[in-house]
Amino acid sequence: MIDPEVLQRLSATLEQRKAAPPESSYVSSLYAKGTDAICKKVAEEAAETIMAAKDGDLRHIVYEVTDLWFHSLILLSQFGLSADDVLGEFRRREGISGIDEKNSRKS
Amino acid sequence: MIDPEVLQRLSATLEQRKAAPPESSYVSSLYAKGTDAICKKVAEEAAETIMAAKDGDLRHIVYEVTDLWFHSLILLSQFGLSADDVLGEFRRREGISGIDEKNSRKS
Amino acid sequence: MIDPEVLQRLSATLEQRKAAPPESSYVSSLYAKGTDAICKKVAEEAAETIMAAKDGDLRHIVYEVTDLWFHSLILLSQFGLSADDVLGEFRRREGISGIDEKNSRKS
Amino acid sequence: MIDPEVLQRLSATLEQRKAAPPESSYVSSLYAKGTDAICKKVAEEAAETIMAAKDGDLRHIVYEVTDLWFHSLILLSQFGLSADDVLGEFRRREGISGIDEKNSRKS
Repeated sequence: MIDPEVLQRLSATLEQRKAAPPESSYVSSLYAKGTDAICKKVAEEAAETIMAAKDGDLRHIVYEVTDLWFHSLILLSQFGLSADDVLGEFRRREGISGIDEKNSRKS
Repeated sequence: MIDPEVLQRLSATLEQRKAAPPESSYVSSLYAKGTDAICKKVAEEAAETIMAAKDGDLRHIVYEVTDLWFHSLILLSQFGLSADDVLGEFRRREGISGIDEKNSRKS
Repeated sequence: MIDPEVLQRLSATLEQRKAAPPESSYVSSLYAKGTDAICKKVAEEAAETIMAAKDGDLRHIVYEVTDLWFHSLILLSQFGLSADDVLGEFRRREGISGIDEKNSRKS
Repeated sequence: MIDPEVLQRLSATLEQRKAAPPESSYVSSLYAKGTDAICKKVAEEAAETIMAAKDGDLRHIVYEVTDLWFHSLILLSQFGLSADDVLGEFRRREGISGIDEKNSRKS
């Protein structure tokens, strides 16, 4: 099983990038461009995820969902939020059965 | 720190739902409707994430990103993939420095 | 050649619907739900256009682009704008050569 | 009232660009990149339309809807379709009352 803390490490790294100069990395340049630029990337990656799904290309689906989540994490960070906030919301839904999910066997 | 395995537990639950009758849950009905219906939800949740960001409503942003990831997990499951595939791709990028990210402490 | 004023007639009809009670039509109910609901439909129809294109289904592409433009017109109307504003912007771009297009015969 | 044939003239111009070398214009380069690249632009412009609506910036809304329709026309052209196909579908819906619209006074 994959070490799931990778999202939390990435979130911490993204937070650090906020202090870096815009030209220092792709992520730093996105922060500098602002919320609209980050949102545009989220929309773009969602579209690419859909196109990969339509192609039925498994490797590409995984790649695009990763890009989608990556840019979601940048958006969260832009607002001072992190992977933990989303994982916490998943955890909360799990606990109270969520939209329609419950995992009573595990929790 | 939040228990990050929540995504893996959810992925396992989603996988189980594929065998359930369509009327048994929201997720089962989405599987029955097929890939286009799931993709449409991914697009919708991406749009709602963007609108929450434009509103600057932190609680709503977390809620919509969770919905976006939730429907991404359903899409992955539709193709026999899981949270581990995406976490593995994040792990791989971390190792080789990713799009532009590196976590020198870990790699 | 199709009578192109259909967009302007539709825009006028949509404008009239703004005064109608929410339950009187699909369009009236969308106005009542507000900007976010209309935006969500625009995102949804864009996603459906993309999926129709990926399927290469010509009839479906035409149908979904029509839906996308239809909901764009509702969004314009929500802000007191109309088809004429968009056609005027196309006309302006034609005149000054637009993003990168020019129609030297006309301008 | 704006000359509504601007869409049909643009559609004809776009069709001509399909024979031009990729480096000759933005549109020609998009055709060369293929359907996925055009779809990605449609998704992007839909997202920008939504963000302009959230900002309530009228000039920006008109600009982004024009961009969205412009890229829709490129997508149609990519499949040998044109503005007339969409206008014809609007006309058909007008005639038979459409999704929920009817303009019996006009037709």
